[in-house]
Formats: sequence, structure tokens, C-alpha cells
Amino acid sequence: MRVTTFDLDSEPVSADTARYFDKCEEKLGLVPNVLKSYAFDDVKLRAFTDMYNDLMLGASGLSKLEREMIAVAVSSVNRCFYCLTAHGATVRDYSCDPKLGELMVMNYRVADLSERQRVMLDFAVKLTKHPHEILEGDRQRQREAGFSDRDIWDIATVTGFFNMSNRVAVATDMRPNDEYHAMAQ
Amino acid sequence: MRVTTFDLDSEPVSADTARYFDKCEEKLGLVPNVLKSYAFDDVKLRAFTDMYNDLMLGASGLSKLEREMIAVAVSSVNRCFYCLTAHGATVRDYSCDPKLGELMVMNYRVADLSERQRVMLDFAVKLTKHPHEILEGDRQRQREAGFSDRDIWDIATVTGFFNMSNRVAVATDMRPNDEYHAMAQ
Amino acid sequence: MRVTTFDLDSEPVSADTARYFDKCEEKLGLVPNVLKSYAFDDVKLRAFTDMYNDLMLGASGLSKLEREMIAVAVSSVNRCFYCLTAHGATVRDYSCDPKLGELMVMNYRVADLSERQRVMLDFAVKLTKHPHEILEGDRQRQREAGFSDRDIWDIATVTGFFNMSNRVAVATDMRPNDEYHAMAQ
Amino acid sequence: MRVTTFDLDSEPVSADTARYFDKCEEKLGLVPNVLKSYAFDDVKLRAFTDMYNDLMLGASGLSKLEREMIAVAVSSVNRCFYCLTAHGATVRDYSCDPKLGELMVMNYRVADLSERQRVMLDFAVKLTKHPHEILEGDRQRQREAGFSDRDIWDIATVTGFFNMSNRVAVATDMRPNDEYHAMAQ
Amino acid sequence: MRVTTFDLDSEPVSADTARYFDKCEEKLGLVPNVLKSYAFDDVKLRAFTDMYNDLMLGASGLSKLEREMIAVAVSSVNRCFYCLTAHGATVRDYSCDPKLGELMVMNYRVADLSERQRVMLDFAVKLTKHPHEILEGDRQRQREAGFSDRDIWDIATVTGFFNMSNRVAVATDMRPNDEYHAMAQ
Amino acid sequence: MRVTTFDLDSEPVSADTARYFDKCEEKLGLVPNVLKSYAFDDVKLRAFTDMYNDLMLGASGLSKLEREMIAVAVSSVNRCFYCLTAHGATVRDYSCDPKLGELMVMNYRVADLSERQRVMLDFAVKLTKHPHEILEGDRQRQREAGFSDRDIWDIATVTGFFNMSNRVAVATDMRPNDEYHAMAQ
Repeated sequence: MRVTTFDLDSEPVSADTARYFDKCEEKLGLVPNVLKSYAFDDVKLRAFTDMYNDLMLGASGLSKLEREMIAVAVSSVNRCFYCLTAHGATVRDYSCDPKLGELMVMNYRVADLSERQRVMLDFAVKLTKHPHEILEGDRQRQREAGFSDRDIWDIATVTGFFNMSNRVAVATDMRPNDEYHAMAQ
Repeated sequence: MRVTTFDLDSEPVSADTARYFDKCEEKLGLVPNVLKSYAFDDVKLRAFTDMYNDLMLGASGLSKLEREMIAVAVSSVNRCFYCLTAHGATVRDYSCDPKLGELMVMNYRVADLSERQRVMLDFAVKLTKHPHEILEGDRQRQREAGFSDRDIWDIATVTGFFNMSNRVAVATDMRPNDEYHAMAQ
Repeated sequence: MRVTTFDLDSEPVSADTARYFDKCEEKLGLVPNVLKSYAFDDVKLRAFTDMYNDLMLGASGLSKLEREMIAVAVSSVNRCFYCLTAHGATVRDYSCDPKLGELMVMNYRVADLSERQRVMLDFAVKLTKHPHEILEGDRQRQREAGFSDRDIWDIATVTGFFNMSNRVAVATDMRPNDEYHAMAQ
Repeated sequence: MRVTTFDLDSEPVSADTARYFDKCEEKLGLVPNVLKSYAFDDVKLRAFTDMYNDLMLGASGLSKLEREMIAVAVSSVNRCFYCLTAHGATVRDYSCDPKLGELMVMNYRVADLSERQRVMLDFAVKLTKHPHEILEGDRQRQREAGFSDRDIWDIATVTGFFNMSNRVAVATDMRPNDEYHAMAQ
Repeated sequence: MRVTTFDLDSEPVSADTARYFDKCEEKLGLVPNVLKSYAFDDVKLRAFTDMYNDLMLGASGLSKLEREMIAVAVSSVNRCFYCLTAHGATVRDYSCDPKLGELMVMNYRVADLSERQRVMLDFAVKLTKHPHEILEGDRQRQREAGFSDRDIWDIATVTGFFNMSNRVAVATDMRPNDEYHAMAQ
Repeated sequence: MRVTTFDLDSEPVSADTARYFDKCEEKLGLVPNVLKSYAFDDVKLRAFTDMYNDLMLGASGLSKLEREMIAVAVSSVNRCFYCLTAHGATVRDYSCDPKLGELMVMNYRVADLSERQRVMLDFAVKLTKHPHEILEGDRQRQREAGFSDRDIWDIATVTGFFNMSNRVAVATDMRPNDEYHAMAQ
């Protein structure tokens, strides 16, 4: 079940987790390797998926594509192979625009974005690279681009989440499922 | 209930959350402002506390103090006022050593640490500053210092968690409870 | 003939250049936009193509794939959308391994490379990021990995060439041909 | 003929190259060591000199001194001893102002420059240090300072060329001719 | 008399120095370890204390608290354990505001400062991190915030002094007196 | 008497300072502009010259040339035009080797130095760029190169002094005397 040389000496997957993985397989055609990595402990897996599902799939003033764009732009700063591959594929898929996926991976700054999306990604990337320099002026620029404080919360938490996931993935040598590479090209 | 000018237009806190806050008050003598910040949405609050409680208080090969030391060393890189204040107080409290708390805040490298703890913090800080440069050699150094892959998972996830929380806190201008400053000095 | 809003007020392409472009179309199925960008001046176009063709296609102790891997690893440091797209496609094409192309774009460090190729790319990337810190020890490590001084010359000049091209492309807002995105996926 | 411990096992210089070196000797009083470094291969030498001569001596909206100022400011970022020495001497020579040469080597920002030259060097240095952050606004500032898109092309290609040459020089331990140090002081 | 493993093989303290240390003990309740470090040489000790006393205690358009705020903000950039501890305590003491001390140590940017003090600290920190980028515009912003050129001199020399002291302290492994940690909490 | 647009509204120079300047004129053929900058206040001028004269001209295990080499290598990191010009001239003068002066200004790493001097400058430059990363291992490398702790003190204090002076010079727009440029070329 392990996907790298990193070895968690995991027990067999629990019945709950097995059911969850069946649902993934059915819906996505695969069980993302990140979930297999967490599968050694039901509490950790559930904490991770609860947070992920709420952030990326729950109600939000940001579209699902926008949240995935943040995911990839942040992962590009951190150069996380796992997240760039998996979420780059999702951007291609959601947008039906393979070039947009590549732009988020390579350099979001040269993409042809709406002002709203540029301001959103500039904030996410500054928060990733220089969190100690985020000040009221940065929040104010978001508001001027039409984001409510509730939206800024979502930009901040998605940005934060991938700053966490990128580091867990690289620290544990997580490898993306091979299927992602060809997806939605 | 809000603790900064950042405004989430939150509804009154739910009954579940009110009960949780009462328990915090009882146990800690205060409700950490980070929890008040998440209180506008029960799902988000629970996802956050589930992950936090498992990581920082659950079973682990790392002591609770070691996990808090990681929290502060990571927050020092990111210069997060909220987390440095709150978790700096916890390091002082757990260790009964105010100087250790200051060292984690100021520069963990000059603290008088065991080899195990130095290697652990070096990894957490490299993972925070240069995640793209983490390679097998870095994991190997952890193993040579006595950490199992299961322990490295915990170092990685605690490091990841504070890289998330630091960014959520600075993005939303979260402010620590005043009580932390004088705690365990 | 121009490919961006950047405007060189170019004359009609010369007969020589038109012939050269026909040959590109025939061999590659397209005229790379970088060549169209240089087409306003025959001397500049020829100087560029002479250097490029010698470096990337001429005799060398480095395979053509290795030279393209350097091109992409360097362009990844500089986050050059044009070169990452065009040469990322070439790595996929030469290697018949789409994942290798993505790894060069995203983070060459986590790719499964031979010692020779890792040492070569480490040198190219250090030379790109910290040229002032290259010393005899760096050359020595190349030699220990089997490279002759003549090979190091080629690593250095390919690395140098893309540090030039990346900057010309981003300064003039050069855009890759759309065909590259789907190529060899 | 070799000028460092770096060893290309070069054949005797070809008749063409010998003639070219004689012309250098006649015109400059020396054969620049960079040309001796390239002399092991006529194709590479010609590609290099064709590009160099067009860029630095050909027709351009930038004066020859301005192009040399870019050369030195770029080489200062990369701390390339060869190019700083050789092109620092040329700035002193062209400008009859030894202090200007030192300023370009040490910190162009504190030199007493025209607005045009400051804007030009700011662009060259940003393009050298942070190519991925160059956007339309940067080109626009050049235009407002009086540069045409054709001029920006020349700023970009001279900047690019020295980002290449600096790296070839440091990678191969190229050493400047001793004559440069005292020239035009 | 030495306070670290760093060993200066110092002679017994001179009579002059002994008198000076008695005065410190009387006024401050302790002899700062930095003075003990310099005590091996009367000339060095006097040069250091003459400069320090003039800068930090002499007449100035900056209040003593403002000079200490600069000391801590600079030491925070350089992560100097000695100066952060000693001068953090002084900020707490002068301001009667422990939180202000922590803010200077952790991240002065999120402190609730007057425009004057924010502009002053922004200058001190830029001068610490990027001295080569300080230009007339930076001085102009100080003047617009009400500082005279004489005040800017004091901001510059206090900033400079702690950039010196931080480096002497970390290079010689200087350790702060234990008394500082609990002072004015 | 002022040497830049920076305006200290200085009184006429005191009799003591006038005598000191006469001595400078006699010995050096000029009054260094840095001294004129400090001349507005006798206490500040004396504190500066006392420290400078002890550090750079007093008894030490480091030769005067070595101390000047540190001065220039440090000023090169900080890109301080004043100190690079004045102390670059002194290195040329003391060493009778104009190329050594240029190497210290441009990139000390590629100079042909003794192991002792390379280790000394590596320490000075690391202490300048990354003071928070200086640890016992760095001191140990100095000792292995033959430096006593007393010598390390001098390396540290000279390094510290120029980290101070560089910042005072750039903050106050100090300009070197024109005579330095041609000196000892």
C-alpha cells in the first residue's frame, strides 16, 4: 500500500478507510496516494480529509477552480512534485485549459488572468514566501478586488493548507499516482 | 467575539462550540483566540481542533514539549506573532525553563540541545525554509539520530501544521490572548 | 509575424529567413516563436541559431537529452514560461517519458536520476543561482562523476545559454507555440 | 594558450583564428582571454564573436557605453571577476571617468545617472536577479523613459548575453588579462 | 570572568575596569556580560562603552525607548540571542509594556506603532537587510515623517552599532546574563 | 565641510578636531570624508576614531593588510561604495597588488589566497550574511586554520565594525574622497 521507500509500518487499512477508498476509486478512478500515505491511522486520515473536503469542495466565495489555482501556485513556490502533479491535473480538468495548468505550475504571473484572480494569487504567493510581511495593506488590496473578509479567510486557509501539505509530501517523499500526468492534457 | 479588525460577520457561536469553549476556559483558563477566529463555522472549527489535538496532544514518539519546540522554531522562521506568543508560553510552561522558550523564539540554533532535538529542529526549519531541497539524505540524518519513519511523519506533520497556522494567523491578523505574555515567565 | 504585444516594427522577413523557416516547418512541424521573434534582423537571427544549433545539436560528450534536461532545469530556476514549455516538450519527446519532463519543470532534485545526471544538474542549477560561489571543488565533483573538462565546458555553455534565453524571453514577453503543450504527453 | 588550470586539450589554433587574434592584438593591444578560451573550436568561437560583435558594437539605440554599463552592472550581481575586470576597464575607457567604472562594479544605484540610464540599469538588474517577476509594468517603465521596444530588445539581449558569459567564465575559471587592471585608471 | 567557552586568555581586570563594573552593579544590578567579554583589554572596552553610552544614553532627537526599539528590531533580523534578550528586557522596562518587547523581538511590523516609529523601524530594518538598496527616497520618507538629518544620523548609527554588536556577540558566543529573562515581564 | 546633500547643520569644527584633521592631511595627504561626516560632534568623532584606530592599526594577530582585506570583503557583501573605494585603495597600497584590491571588491572567493586568509574571509563573509547561522563549528574551523580565540575576536570585531560603517555610510550618502580612485593602481 506504501507508495515510497518511506516506511510507516502501517497496519492493514481499517474497514472505514477501505470503504472511503472504494468511494475514491469510484468517483476519481483512483485513490490519491496522499490518502494511502495517511491510511496508517484512521484519526489522522479523517482529520486530513475533513479539512481538505471542507476547504476544497465546501461552500465558498471562491470557485473550485480558483481554490485549485491557489493550490498549484503555492506548490510552485515550494516546488512540491506531488501537489504540482495532482493539482496541476485538476486545474487542467476544471478549466478544460491545459495551458492554464502549465502556467500555474511554471509562473502564474505571466498567465492572462482577471484582476480578481491575479490579486488573489499575488496574496497567496506573498503569504507563502514572506508571511511576516503581510500587513493590513495586503488585506485591503484583496477587498478592493471584490473579496470579502470571509473570502480572504478562504484564500488564507487554502494557502495555508497547501503550505502544510507540500511540506508533508516532500518530507515523506510522497509520489503522485501515475495517472495524473496524462490527465486532461 | 472577534479579536481583530478582520471581520467574518460571524453568527452567534453554536451550542457545541460554546460547550467546547467552556471546556477550554476550565482547562486552560482562557479560550485561545485562534479558536474564536474559527468559531464562525462549526465544520472548520472541528476540522482544525481535530487535527490540532491529534498532532499536539495525541500519541507520538515525540514528547509534547518537543512538538511545541517545533511549533515555535517554525513560527520563528515565519515570524508569526500569534504562534510565537502562544506556543512560546507553552514551551516555557512544559519545560519550566523560560530561557528555552526565548531561545526557540529567537534562534534555536544557539540553544543547548540534545543531538536528537537539534537534528529534529534542523529538519523542521529546513522543511520550512527550503522544502524543495529536502532529500533522502535529510530523512537519513533523522534516522541516524534515532527517529523512526513514524517519528519523521510526526515531525513533518507538526512542521506542516504550523506552516499552515502561521499563514492563517498572519493573513487574518490574529492576535494572541494577553494572558500568554506573562505565562510561565 | 509577431507573437506578443511586444512590438519590434519588423520588416518583412528576408528570403534567407523565409527559407530557414520553411525548413523548420518541415522538420519540426512549426516555426518556434523564438525564431520569429529574432526574425526582424538576419544577423541577430543567425547569431542566435548558430550558437543554439552548435550547443544543442552539435557533437558533445553530453547526449541531446542531457542538454535538454539542463535547459529545463535552468529554466525552472528562472521560471521562464517559454523555455519550460518548449524544452519541457523536447525532454518528453527525447526521453519518451512525460514524467521526466514534468520532473525537470517542477523539481529535478526528486527525479530518479543517474549519479552522472544528478551531479550535472546540481552544477547547472548552482551555476544559475549562485554563480559567484562556483569554485574548483565544484569542477572537481564533475570530474569525479566522469565528466572531462571538455564536457564541463558544454554543461557551462548550455547552462549559460539558457540563462541568456530565459531572460530575453521574459523581457520581451515571448509566448511558446500552442503546439508544445500537447506534444509527447 | 590556456589561461587557467581548466584544461580543454585544445588543438593548435586554426589559421582563421590566428588571423582573428592578430587583428585583436592590433586593435586592442591584446587578445582577450575569453577568446583564447573559445579557441579550441572554430564554430564555437565564431558563434560567440558573431553574437558579441553584433550586440556590443553593432547599430543600436543604446550607446556603446550604455551597453558596457549594462555588462558591468549585470556582472556585479553575478560577481564575475573576468567580466567585471574586462568590462569595468571598458567603461572607464569609453567614459574617460574611472569613478563611473568603479560605481558600476560596486553599486550602480548610487551613481549619478540620467533617469534614462537608471531606468535601463534597474531593468537589467531586475531581469538578472528576478527574471520571473518581469511583467508588462517593467517594460512600460522603459517606454516611459524613452526606450522603444527595439531598444528594450537590446537591453534584454545585452543583459542576457552577460548572464551567459558570466556563467561560462566562472564555471571554467576564466581569468582576465593582466593589462585590464591598470587600463584607463 | 569569561561567560562562554570562547577563551580570550584575559588578564585580571584592571583597576579602572573594576571601578566601572562596580558602577554597573550599583546602577543596573548586574555587569552586562558583553562588558565582561571586552574586559580583557581596557582600550577596547573603553572604545565600546564610549560609543555605546553616547549613542544609547546621550542627547538625541530619538527617545531612549526608540533607540532600544531599533536595537531589538535590528537584532531580530540578525537573530542575535544576546542582544534580543538584553535589549528586549530594556524595551519592556522603558515602555512598561512587556508586549511591546515581544513584538520587537518577534515581528515589529505587526506592532501598533505611531507612523513616526514605523517609518523609523522600516528604515532601520531595510538598512540592516538591504543596505545597498538605500537611496535618497528612503531618506526622504524619514524626513516626511518628521525626522531631521541629525535624527537620521542617529537612526543610522544605532542601526549600525547593533549590526556590529550582533555580529561580535554571535561570533564569540556571548551569552546574556540570566537576570534579563525575568526582567520587567 | 559637508560632503553630500545629507545635511547635519554642523557647527564649525572644534580646535581638537582641526588639529586631528591636520595630522590626517599630513600623514595621508587627505582628510577622509568619513571623518568630516563625524566632525559635527567631537564625542562621536572621538568614539569612532578610537575604535577604528585600535581595530585597524593597533596590536593584533592579524596583519594590517588582513584587516583591510576583511574590510573590503565585508563591504563587498553590503555593496558600500564609500568603504569599497577607500579600503580597496588601502588593500592595493598595503599589498602593492592592484589585482588583490579588485579581487576583494569583486569576489574574494576566486582570489589566490593562503588557506589561513581564505578561512578568515569565509568566516567574515558568513558572519556578515548569515550571522544567525554562526555556530561552534565555524569557530572551530578558524582554530584549525591557526587562529587563536584572541584572533577570532579581532576577525569578529573588524567584521562587525564594517557592518556598522557600511550602514552609516550608505544611510547618510557618504562619498569617498576622489583621491582614492587613482591611489596605488
